[in-house]
Amino acid sequence: MSAPVTLINPFKVPADKLEAAIEYWEAHRDFMAQQPGYLSTQLHQSIDEGATYQLINVAIWQSEADFYQAAQKMRQALGHVQVEGLCGNPALYRVIRT
Amino acid sequence: MSAPVTLINPFKVPADKLEAAIEYWEAHRDFMAQQPGYLSTQLHQSIDEGATYQLINVAIWQSEADFYQAAQKMRQALGHVQVEGLCGNPALYRVIRT
Repeated sequence: MSAPVTLINPFKVPADKLEAAIEYWEAHRDFMAQQPGYLSTQLHQSIDEGATYQLINVAIWQSEADFYQAAQKMRQALGHVQVEGLCGNPALYRVIRT
Repeated sequence: MSAPVTLINPFKVPADKLEAAIEYWEAHRDFMAQQPGYLSTQLHQSIDEGATYQLINVAIWQSEADFYQAAQKMRQALGHVQVEGLCGNPALYRVIRT
């Protein structure tokens, strides 16, 4: 059985779109949390408003396959980004050092 | 007492510098792990080698002040980046949603 994977998704958020971006994230979190292999997620907000990435999502999934299947279903169910200028840069990771 | 903060540091890593970047990170982790307020850290490596950020460090600190004092001492003790082309983009975050 493969080890869990970590999705890290840094978001560039236009200055006036923070609330809308959080609502967008919540809708997608609610969908993904129902999918097989979902383990946990944490949405981080930067303390410094000038940070490159004001929001970063860090989510744990049981496997790569689980995540990709859920992400495909999410795109079909929720469509693409509806918050103008919101730009994510998701990738899957494994913890290699602590 | 303020809530813990999360340092998230995405690294752009030149193709031939992954090992050197991990060794650089380990030296800094060893120093920071001795500082007051350090709680934990996880270094993530992207599963897809083509990801924008091949390494992302996620560390938990007791407070902003603890982190900034430790980071200042680290720069004095270890100096600046010695891995050519390695580019971090650190910022402090708080978890706002799970």
